[in-house]
Amino acid sequence: MPVLRPRPLPRVLLLGLVPVAAWFVVRPLLEPLPSIPALYSSIGFSIFAFLATIYLVPALGPTFIKARLSGRDLLKVYGSEIPKEETLVPESLGLVCASIYILSLILFIPFAFSTPILQQANAKKPHEGISVVEFPHHQLSVYLSSLLSLLVATMLGFLDDVFDIRWRHKLPIPIIASIPLLMVYYAEHGNTNVVVPLPLRFIFGTLINLGPLYYVYMSLLSTFSTNSINILAGINGSETSQALIIALSVILNDLLYLPWPVKIRVPLHLLGNTTELGFGGVWKAGMAYGSRELVERHLFSLYFMLPLVAVCIGFLYHNWYPARAFPGDTLCYVTGMAFAVVGIQAHFSKTLLLFFMPQIFNFLLSCPQLFGLVPCPRHRVPRFEAETNLLHPSKAAERQFEKAPSKITVIVLRILSTLGLAELTTDPTSGVITNTTNLTILNVFLLRLGPMNEKKLVQVLIVSQVAGSIFAFFIRYGLAWLVYDGDRR
Amino acid sequence: MPVLRPRPLPRVLLLGLVPVAAWFVVRPLLEPLPSIPALYSSIGFSIFAFLATIYLVPALGPTFIKARLSGRDLLKVYGSEIPKEETLVPESLGLVCASIYILSLILFIPFAFSTPILQQANAKKPHEGISVVEFPHHQLSVYLSSLLSLLVATMLGFLDDVFDIRWRHKLPIPIIASIPLLMVYYAEHGNTNVVVPLPLRFIFGTLINLGPLYYVYMSLLSTFSTNSINILAGINGSETSQALIIALSVILNDLLYLPWPVKIRVPLHLLGNTTELGFGGVWKAGMAYGSRELVERHLFSLYFMLPLVAVCIGFLYHNWYPARAFPGDTLCYVTGMAFAVVGIQAHFSKTLLLFFMPQIFNFLLSCPQLFGLVPCPRHRVPRFEAETNLLHPSKAAERQFEKAPSKITVIVLRILSTLGLAELTTDPTSGVITNTTNLTILNVFLLRLGPMNEKKLVQVLIVSQVAGSIFAFFIRYGLAWLVYDGDRR
Repeated sequence: MPVLRPRPLPRVLLLGLVPVAAWFVVRPLLEPLPSIPALYSSIGFSIFAFLATIYLVPALGPTFIKARLSGRDLLKVYGSEIPKEETLVPESLGLVCASIYILSLILFIPFAFSTPILQQANAKKPHEGISVVEFPHHQLSVYLSSLLSLLVATMLGFLDDVFDIRWRHKLPIPIIASIPLLMVYYAEHGNTNVVVPLPLRFIFGTLINLGPLYYVYMSLLSTFSTNSINILAGINGSETSQALIIALSVILNDLLYLPWPVKIRVPLHLLGNTTELGFGGVWKAGMAYGSRELVERHLFSLYFMLPLVAVCIGFLYHNWYPARAFPGDTLCYVTGMAFAVVGIQAHFSKTLLLFFMPQIFNFLLSCPQLFGLVPCPRHRVPRFEAETNLLHPSKAAERQFEKAPSKITVIVLRILSTLGLAELTTDPTSGVITNTTNLTILNVFLLRLGPMNEKKLVQVLIVSQVAGSIFAFFIRYGLAWLVYDGDRR
Repeated sequence: MPVLRPRPLPRVLLLGLVPVAAWFVVRPLLEPLPSIPALYSSIGFSIFAFLATIYLVPALGPTFIKARLSGRDLLKVYGSEIPKEETLVPESLGLVCASIYILSLILFIPFAFSTPILQQANAKKPHEGISVVEFPHHQLSVYLSSLLSLLVATMLGFLDDVFDIRWRHKLPIPIIASIPLLMVYYAEHGNTNVVVPLPLRFIFGTLINLGPLYYVYMSLLSTFSTNSINILAGINGSETSQALIIALSVILNDLLYLPWPVKIRVPLHLLGNTTELGFGGVWKAGMAYGSRELVERHLFSLYFMLPLVAVCIGFLYHNWYPARAFPGDTLCYVTGMAFAVVGIQAHFSKTLLLFFMPQIFNFLLSCPQLFGLVPCPRHRVPRFEAETNLLHPSKAAERQFEKAPSKITVIVLRILSTLGLAELTTDPTSGVITNTTNLTILNVFLLRLGPMNEKKLVQVLIVSQVAGSIFAFFIRYGLAWLVYDGDRR
């Protein structure tokens, strides 16, 4: 493998994007006023965020290496003639992504919330359909508290990178980052009611007030969304591509609730649904069914997701196999917290969790190792075979378990092995289990599809994430009527 | 000098403070309701912040040393028998202070802004005087934007510590931290008028709208307050004690505007003032002259200053000569930004600047070195003489200037020398200036008062800061009527 040089940047194309981005940013100030002016600025800032990321990541790489924030890629081989310093990959560059992301969200504030701009816009309100030119003022507090949580998450992620906190200690860290969110949610007297699924309504009624439990749920959601991305990591591009696809799925879901000029109908009768799925239409605003509040919530989510997608694409360019930059924990923290923020503030946490299906699967699969039933090595990444350049499933113990596994461990491992999720090594004479593959989704891919190289593996991961999202949309809009009534506001 | 062990903590005393702090925190929920309930919680959280700082700083020291965030104290001598690792002092512990400070401000949110608590409180409003039980709701956005700026400042300060940014590059960094403040100030359509001093009113009128210039002023204020503390540094306890005394001065000034049950009158006629200085009184609320808005502004300031004082005291215990912990740039960034925040949001930036007199003097004195007229070494701390344990004024050039000083440099240095602010070295034959003492207030103290040890020098600095604040109060309340009319709302 040759020495790593920063990936070349197509300057002409990138400079061409600057005027486009600038036009989008100032669009709310131009006539004729669109129905959702701030959305244009958000797109403009996202393009700028993309440009900033793709340029700054390689530019700041050497600074990170100098500050000893760097690592060696464990799944690559370098010729012995190359000096070791030249194989260092800068680490923690998620910090750059997070900074650009948060800065673009801060600079966006006047465009979404500024009184003078909104007053002017209100005077020239478009006549047809739901228009969001006067953004509700109390939303500013909610927006700022979300920014605070993102910033705390970035800070903690970076501290994790600098101080290298052990994973058992860092599991609860996202709870700290969710505190600003919770405090403002409480101060703003946020809604703690949840809609009860149909089969349980005879016990709880239609709505149930979770009270303090709702706050526990919110902080657990941020803990989950952060850590679940963090434990599905270890190969080039894995963290970034997961975040990218989840963010794109959230955006697609948000778009269903906006007042589009065209109206599209999908006949869901074929799937046994009682209604057809219609989205678009300036008054009905698609899935929002004319609810202004739903439109605003999903706009809020869009404002956080568009720049996130932008920095993820920009970073993936450098993080793609063979990686020129590593994200560090910072990227997982900030993306995880961003998903939690939109899920909580825009009230679609259940839909959000549907987009985390591969992560949920990976988390459940990892539980025996996370909670000590099965030995857990420091790194669970697949094993690299230098001769063939292929990845193989890695083992939980280097040679074999130090002591014979307990009864419950044996049961769990046997079940996983039967389901094809783990490959066990047994003592040929006694039949005792002596080792197992690490319990991660990446190892499952390698077990089921055979050894493959790192690039192929991350592609399989991406495909599974996309498939998960498609399935999620099917559940959300095709099957949700089974447990909730049609009118989902 | 023996090896540095963490300073012992009087456990019994500290544990005794926990119930006191807890009582203060929950006081707003108890009967009878005080006129400013949230102030009690603020005091309670500040006591907790003090306890957290004094305990966590020594506890986390080894972690910082392990992450290579440590330095050697340049103004101490150690026996050669002591291994070098044992003389390392953990650096950047301002990060711990900043984290505790910001976390306590976040946890305070429900007590100051929560709708249910305030509704309950409003029903039982005290009958007499100005009571601040219903805190204006839009203040939450202002509070959150201030927190964002503090957090960005902390982040940037820590990045400065980790990446060791050169000082010329880091001068504008606080401008970035002030962006959230400016954005929300703009979105909230903040006031950009300033009152014109009497002598200039015939040109500008009573009020002048600075417009965009006001935003420039705000970001320059944060740049100044941050950097001016950062360049008056280098001896044990200097940064922390400056911040502590400025914060205490701000608090004293805030207290003049609160509705105290007693009324105190200071006859200022003696100083030539036309009115007497009266503060206290439940309805007039001292200097607020019955203005509810002024009371709220100064409460806002108190809420930010009380926990700041608490963490500064807690940290000073460990940072005092001989220091067991260094603050790093993080402390200067967060304290400087905190002062800028209260000066801007509570609209008393001119009064605030009066408390910065020693810093302004030091900044003006440093200008010839900062802007390249006089050579500027990496560190301008006083020179340490190991035999006597005394500090002497340090020199700008190690031996002598590399080239003969320019004409303007000669003029500046001659003036400073005549004023007794610098000591020049001249070539005995040609009379050309070959060296000068570094242009800092610390060197001026050593020039004027003679060599002294480090502890004495920081005490002199503290005395000068206190004297500056007393003089500031005299100007603000004794002389301000010369340039502004009496009714300062």
